[in-house]
Amino acid sequence: MIILGIDPGLTCTGWGVVAKSGSRLSHVANGQIRTDAKASMAERLVELDTGLAAVIAQHHPDAGAVEEVFVNVNPQSTLKLGQARGVALLAVARAGLPVAEYPTKVIKKALVGTGGAEKTQVQAMLKVLLPGVTLAGADAADALAVAICHANMMGSHR
Amino acid sequence: MIILGIDPGLTCTGWGVVAKSGSRLSHVANGQIRTDAKASMAERLVELDTGLAAVIAQHHPDAGAVEEVFVNVNPQSTLKLGQARGVALLAVARAGLPVAEYPTKVIKKALVGTGGAEKTQVQAMLKVLLPGVTLAGADAADALAVAICHANMMGSHR
Repeated sequence: MIILGIDPGLTCTGWGVVAKSGSRLSHVANGQIRTDAKASMAERLVELDTGLAAVIAQHHPDAGAVEEVFVNVNPQSTLKLGQARGVALLAVARAGLPVAEYPTKVIKKALVGTGGAEKTQVQAMLKVLLPGVTLAGADAADALAVAICHANMMGSHR
Repeated sequence: MIILGIDPGLTCTGWGVVAKSGSRLSHVANGQIRTDAKASMAERLVELDTGLAAVIAQHHPDAGAVEEVFVNVNPQSTLKLGQARGVALLAVARAGLPVAEYPTKVIKKALVGTGGAEKTQVQAMLKVLLPGVTLAGADAADALAVAICHANMMGSHR
């Protein structure tokens, strides 16, 4: 079972792929898709879509999981985030994959045991759960975290 | 020159296609894409994407124009609107079309002469500019309005 986690953002979208075999979890790949801030909104969304389609084509995930975004106080930022998030959800669903969504607190709780965990705690736990992993950045780390959260939740449903 | 206007929304996205030949404008088609409120967010975005792709495949527009959405006071609504809008911008740009964006006030001013025009005034003007048009609904009307706005703006650039 291959799971793709995504932490969407217009400037930078993190992605992380993990494999689950029974109760065993392993790291496959992680990375970040940055869009050109000088390009138009539509062009940036195409960059994001193209990048995610390439990740899906390369790693053939069986399921996708997307972090539920923090709704910003600034409506314009929320709108931009929504646009990137819409493209991310679409990229996964269009590939025929089921998409799960998890709030940040649930992801942190799944990994560290508390919804109020710091980012550094989450990243430290990622290195324990996925030995030898090299994190492409903070957004890629968040994406791996949502993938692992989904792997755990799926296990608990069975 | 065929122009596709879009008024994006998660529940209902309006679309309108107009043809411009010199200074002459004519109606091609308009409609609304409704998504299943009971489906998941990802499924609804796929419905919207599939619907817009079908419109583009049928009418072969040369350019797209999207209404800049009203940023809602409710952040969750703004996020949903952003997700639908991201998919709409992507659908147009992915088809290789240039995408223009216009604020509602600019669209109203282009059609009625004042940015504070009522929806009923805009719809009355649509019927004058596009004789015989049947509007599929309020969102389709807004989409035709943004298409006409873009047609006018393009003319004024030459």
